[in-house]
Amino acid sequence: MEGVSSEAASLAGHLSLGRLIYLYDDNHISIDGSTDLAFTENRAARFRSYGWQVLRVEDGNDVEAIDKAIQEAKPDPRPSLLVCRTIIGFGAPHKQGTAKAHGEPLGDEELNAAKDNLGWPKEPRFFIPDDVLAFYREAVDRGRELEYDWKMKLDAYQRLHPVQGAELQRRLKGKLPEGWDSALPTFPLDAKGMATRAASGKVINALAPKLPELIGGSADLAPSNNTKIEGSPAFQKDSYNGRNFHFGVREHAMGSILNGMAVFGGVIPYGGTFLVFSDYMRPAIRLAALSHYPSIFIFTHDSVGLGEDGPTHQPVEQLMSLRLIPNLVVIRPADANETVKAWKVAVERRDGPTLLALTRQAVPTFDTISTQVERGAYVLKDFSKPEIILMASGSEVSLILEAAQKLADEGKGVRVVSFPSWELFEKQDEAYRESVLPKNIQKRLAVEAGASLGWERYARSVIGIDRYGASAPAKVIFDKLGFTVENVVAKAKEL
Amino acid sequence: MEGVSSEAASLAGHLSLGRLIYLYDDNHISIDGSTDLAFTENRAARFRSYGWQVLRVEDGNDVEAIDKAIQEAKPDPRPSLLVCRTIIGFGAPHKQGTAKAHGEPLGDEELNAAKDNLGWPKEPRFFIPDDVLAFYREAVDRGRELEYDWKMKLDAYQRLHPVQGAELQRRLKGKLPEGWDSALPTFPLDAKGMATRAASGKVINALAPKLPELIGGSADLAPSNNTKIEGSPAFQKDSYNGRNFHFGVREHAMGSILNGMAVFGGVIPYGGTFLVFSDYMRPAIRLAALSHYPSIFIFTHDSVGLGEDGPTHQPVEQLMSLRLIPNLVVIRPADANETVKAWKVAVERRDGPTLLALTRQAVPTFDTISTQVERGAYVLKDFSKPEIILMASGSEVSLILEAAQKLADEGKGVRVVSFPSWELFEKQDEAYRESVLPKNIQKRLAVEAGASLGWERYARSVIGIDRYGASAPAKVIFDKLGFTVENVVAKAKEL
Repeated sequence: MEGVSSEAASLAGHLSLGRLIYLYDDNHISIDGSTDLAFTENRAARFRSYGWQVLRVEDGNDVEAIDKAIQEAKPDPRPSLLVCRTIIGFGAPHKQGTAKAHGEPLGDEELNAAKDNLGWPKEPRFFIPDDVLAFYREAVDRGRELEYDWKMKLDAYQRLHPVQGAELQRRLKGKLPEGWDSALPTFPLDAKGMATRAASGKVINALAPKLPELIGGSADLAPSNNTKIEGSPAFQKDSYNGRNFHFGVREHAMGSILNGMAVFGGVIPYGGTFLVFSDYMRPAIRLAALSHYPSIFIFTHDSVGLGEDGPTHQPVEQLMSLRLIPNLVVIRPADANETVKAWKVAVERRDGPTLLALTRQAVPTFDTISTQVERGAYVLKDFSKPEIILMASGSEVSLILEAAQKLADEGKGVRVVSFPSWELFEKQDEAYRESVLPKNIQKRLAVEAGASLGWERYARSVIGIDRYGASAPAKVIFDKLGFTVENVVAKAKEL
Repeated sequence: MEGVSSEAASLAGHLSLGRLIYLYDDNHISIDGSTDLAFTENRAARFRSYGWQVLRVEDGNDVEAIDKAIQEAKPDPRPSLLVCRTIIGFGAPHKQGTAKAHGEPLGDEELNAAKDNLGWPKEPRFFIPDDVLAFYREAVDRGRELEYDWKMKLDAYQRLHPVQGAELQRRLKGKLPEGWDSALPTFPLDAKGMATRAASGKVINALAPKLPELIGGSADLAPSNNTKIEGSPAFQKDSYNGRNFHFGVREHAMGSILNGMAVFGGVIPYGGTFLVFSDYMRPAIRLAALSHYPSIFIFTHDSVGLGEDGPTHQPVEQLMSLRLIPNLVVIRPADANETVKAWKVAVERRDGPTLLALTRQAVPTFDTISTQVERGAYVLKDFSKPEIILMASGSEVSLILEAAQKLADEGKGVRVVSFPSWELFEKQDEAYRESVLPKNIQKRLAVEAGASLGWERYARSVIGIDRYGASAPAKVIFDKLGFTVENVVAKAKEL
């Protein structure tokens, strides 16, 4: 019933993923009762409409029939749905075939009755018949043999093709190639600069030749997300060698598919959409974080600065709400060079997901001397001995830098902190954190084009956005919402 | 392609919503290019599998053909999909039928060429032909007549049936009946208490006879969410008078459907699921907030206290991430009586959505004397002259009350603040907020079984959860994660 399963099945049909076989436990029961209460569509016909093969197993307890269906499904070039008619809680005389068998433990009496039905002893309560145990124990030997065969094959391959063999091993182990990061570009100081989404696109294409395992795409926003690997075909049913995925307008499935690829291994998958649509795939982002999958999420158009698309497309609360997800590293780089470093963190982080929040609009490129994205926050510049700290992430860093200059011109001591990632900063030791944000400087102003809630952790005053956006060019909106040098200077002076 | 459209269409087919007619603008183009890149399923067959009538309009510019299809769709008892084959950017010679006509403005040259194609003048740029203007102007008269006819009908109905007529007017205007809130229950002081989800179920059923416009349901968790209105049938295709909706396992569609009902008016819709699954419907919650729809979202199992279902089902970051959504009122009541007041706020709030976060587990019922949910936060109890403030929401309020008692026994002055709703508190005037949280008491500890990020706004120290949960009974998890009287007392003493 969940929408994500429709999205994923539609794409699997489109891509003709013939090795995919679903066993649908068709027990006609959900928590509210019969599935007839809410779910009377023709499921088999739906999956056929996606381009799937659909097979039926009339008795889902008939192991031979299931095996036969799987054998039939395997050679078919389409993905297959095996509709297995089952009885939930089979054998429990009063609860079988009812919602009670889903939502509640059977209880002693019902368990005893079920055991009587099956001719099983009442003790031990958790009983494993000898023949079942023997059957499963065989799986250990069978698995050992299969693994041995596979290793022999791999060894033979490696002897015949030493270079490709080593490369395959490297990828399966998830090791990065020697010197991979020498491909990372640096961008020259440039007041006009570029959008961080554009810088991200350049990084992807700089890395692509060195990291053949880097694959990804977008939920139908490739030209906007700058996710395309040039010179590689699209991943399609007749081009599984393609590195560019067209996920369609299916953010939730995209996130789930990235997670599947990331945990399978051998590839470094990334996927892009607008930051506001992270809401559509939030369960997949959470699952990646919970399960330590190294998926890379690319979210562009990361503030009201995206302009005329208006409030439905303008993220406000998303950035902070993503920082709330445990074990997710959120990075919002301030310029092209921070974007390079953000990608370095993402590629090297193999025990959890990384998320990049990138601008649509151009931002100035700073020099690279001090860029320390990997530390989460760092001193971009001190204007004489600081008595106040201005901190920001992403597109607002250039704004506070300008404001700091103005304050400095008036003789104030100001520190400018670029704060691309909370999670990375909070992993630093106490001494480093104190060196960036000394306890004795409590006059601190945070500036971020997103919800202010949360910044109280680091700052005494916040310029944020606690309302929805508006439809206008970036500069007009930023001015209206207080993201101006004048306002930053004024708020700093209040402190 | 979006999953939510699959969820909604499946339910519409199930419910046989024959008055629903979709016009599918089938232009074969998405932002990445041809829809063939990602979307080759048989859409017509998919909708037929949902139980829809599917009709085709071969030329989507043929207004007569569209009208004919609509006339054909109307009498059919099924919802209808009209697949209208169109050409995006029709008439623009270089961009028509391409993704450029979706993602970019036409530009001057292309616009001129399109106008040449259509035989239209180049100026004015935004040109409305006279016959088009005349046709649309007629709609004003036509609408006036239709409205007049409808008003006559309504008046006649009201004369014939004065009671029902007045009731219909009341509901259409969204006015609550006189004395509706006299039906609200109060719960006696009770150390054992009850789950706030159970209290919510009692409130719904107490209000149901007085508020016939109150309708709702659950995304297949009715027995867990306590959302059922007793004595009313389910809303099904043969019982549109039913007040209980079975949305199925379709959270995103549920949220969207609630929004549709709320903005249409005449009803007060609510929908329930587990708090962790709010992630699945977050875009719908945001849309309600953005568009000022008075949808009511009931989220039970609101913390790791839900027990053995484990981390995938245990909300951690959800509560605070929902507080981040502008214009959404989030209420997490501490006991049965706060739950009553939370419902009062939700029913009375007609210009935006309200969200209730409710416990699975029993919590003590306090007396009702001080309960002031509508103010967002209030002093539940002062133990002598307070030198420290303990604050909490929901199930943690009874915990801080116990801890405060212990601190008081040791001679400390402690204030206990129940903090069910940030948004409601932040709407109070400065004087009230100062009376609850005086600036001169900075020793403040917040305790909440969710992400701590954000509580720095009000408290200097936080006992929160910044990791995923674990699978164990509520008490065991709470102990492990530091939600014990001993830990609260210790943290308070540190301050």
